[in-house]
Amino acid sequence: MKVVSAIKRVPDEIRSRLTDRFTDVEFMFCHGIEEAEPYLEEADIFLTYGEDLTPERVKSAERLKWIMVLSAGMDRMPFKEIEEQGIVVTNVRGIHAKPMAEYAISMLLQVERQAKVLIEQEKKHNWNRRTVMTEIGGKTLLLLGTGAIAQEVARLGKAFHMRTLGVSKSGNLKSHFDETYSIEKLDQVIHEADYIVAALPSTNETIHLLKNRHFQSMKNHAVFLNMGRGDLVSTEVLLNAVRNEWIGHAVLDVFEEEPLSEGHALWDEERVTITPHLSGISPHYVPRAFEMFEKNLEVYVTGQGDMLNIINLKRGY
Amino acid sequence: MKVVSAIKRVPDEIRSRLTDRFTDVEFMFCHGIEEAEPYLEEADIFLTYGEDLTPERVKSAERLKWIMVLSAGMDRMPFKEIEEQGIVVTNVRGIHAKPMAEYAISMLLQVERQAKVLIEQEKKHNWNRRTVMTEIGGKTLLLLGTGAIAQEVARLGKAFHMRTLGVSKSGNLKSHFDETYSIEKLDQVIHEADYIVAALPSTNETIHLLKNRHFQSMKNHAVFLNMGRGDLVSTEVLLNAVRNEWIGHAVLDVFEEEPLSEGHALWDEERVTITPHLSGISPHYVPRAFEMFEKNLEVYVTGQGDMLNIINLKRGY
Repeated sequence: MKVVSAIKRVPDEIRSRLTDRFTDVEFMFCHGIEEAEPYLEEADIFLTYGEDLTPERVKSAERLKWIMVLSAGMDRMPFKEIEEQGIVVTNVRGIHAKPMAEYAISMLLQVERQAKVLIEQEKKHNWNRRTVMTEIGGKTLLLLGTGAIAQEVARLGKAFHMRTLGVSKSGNLKSHFDETYSIEKLDQVIHEADYIVAALPSTNETIHLLKNRHFQSMKNHAVFLNMGRGDLVSTEVLLNAVRNEWIGHAVLDVFEEEPLSEGHALWDEERVTITPHLSGISPHYVPRAFEMFEKNLEVYVTGQGDMLNIINLKRGY
Repeated sequence: MKVVSAIKRVPDEIRSRLTDRFTDVEFMFCHGIEEAEPYLEEADIFLTYGEDLTPERVKSAERLKWIMVLSAGMDRMPFKEIEEQGIVVTNVRGIHAKPMAEYAISMLLQVERQAKVLIEQEKKHNWNRRTVMTEIGGKTLLLLGTGAIAQEVARLGKAFHMRTLGVSKSGNLKSHFDETYSIEKLDQVIHEADYIVAALPSTNETIHLLKNRHFQSMKNHAVFLNMGRGDLVSTEVLLNAVRNEWIGHAVLDVFEEEPLSEGHALWDEERVTITPHLSGISPHYVPRAFEMFEKNLEVYVTGQGDMLNIINLKRGY
């Protein structure tokens, strides 16, 4: 059985752990798709970030049975050819949950504890104890989305004794939420939240989901945080929300256009904090992705148990 | 039974809750000690922040049986006279646990997620995704102190899947700690910690407890955070630690001298973050203090249960 990897710079520690553990498997660690291409036709299993597979490459991989995508994004995968050849695809869905949940809690604390003001005062050697801060503990947290990322934010929210509300397509109750609602009920719950944290994927139903009226319904002190997709809300609506002081603050990690242009209106808004789409970045990404691969490889090799994160090729996720 | 309060600006909501709940108790809400003084001789119970009682005032309060101090600091209490008159003293020990724990987690996230760098980039409209950040999850957290504040930090640390170590005088195991050690073992565990958070009171044993050798033993990337007392470590040792890069960062909320003078050497150190002794500040302080008072008053009135936070008058804490 042959595993071909197009993942660049796989740490030695991971390579040797894999070869030591799976002694009957041959591993080819290649530095990118150009180096991996000649070996595709012999590969049973292919490891990729999901951006390097063309229909031709899939067709050339005649023995291929499983593609492990070490990413959550699958937009560039040639699913038609993959399905025709009966290849299983798995990804690393959920891998961003920990760093993104830390991002969310970190940014809520940053806003509520006035970190920008305190850092500015520090620079000026200004000992001022009168900055008005508040606690995040005990607040009401509304998550847009109830998937792995939202659940991890909700879990940490519960540790801070927050009330956790979730909104999703189904409205089904998930772990760490006190209450969950279907998306149609959003208008009825949005006014209860101190914090609205969006971790929604981009689908037809979520594009420009949030309108002026949603921000008008929010509490005046509410913090809106978007770390899902930038097209959840238009820039115009965001500017309305902060300029009209419908909300206290917006923390934005994703945008309609990325990178955000240097002259973009959002940069200088006092009530906006911008981060450059980094909520999911983690030094633990590669080790975690390979841990997920190892779990699936164990299932694949032994035939025992179920593989994690099998993709529905018709839906593409 | 008469309660005299010298606490300024007690919110109406709290006043009416007390009078509604304890109908047999007469409450005198005075704006400070000057206003309260004439009523002291009739008081059974006196509410104070603990800074306004003189030996004379205690002596004049002939009926006084209980002093509730809505503060944790008791340095200015005339304990000799209080003891002579057989008065019980309670305080609000533990009230700072929640805001201080939020402060600690917030500052660790701020350092590890490079908030200062990101805020600077935002000001310059600089979309840079290459800032090297890390997660606080999974790290080893060493708390100096294992009291209410340290326990709350440890509790949140566990929510972030940290390994939590504690050092205290007794070394007794407390809630939310994986391991605890007596202070004599500090040298043996300090090198294991990614984060060292000090929440120790100032006693003879803790003044200048941390020496150069302790910081030399810490991990190079370690974050040292002091929110206990400023005299735990001398400014000289702190400057050695950051200038010699023995540690990654120091977060300081307390200092040998406060306020920190404008020309103090610590302000401009790159590896130091300074906050002006604000870790315990919370908008919830007064409500929480009165909740603790209410619990004790219920015990006092009914004779059922035990009062919280009774002070040992000989020790003064």
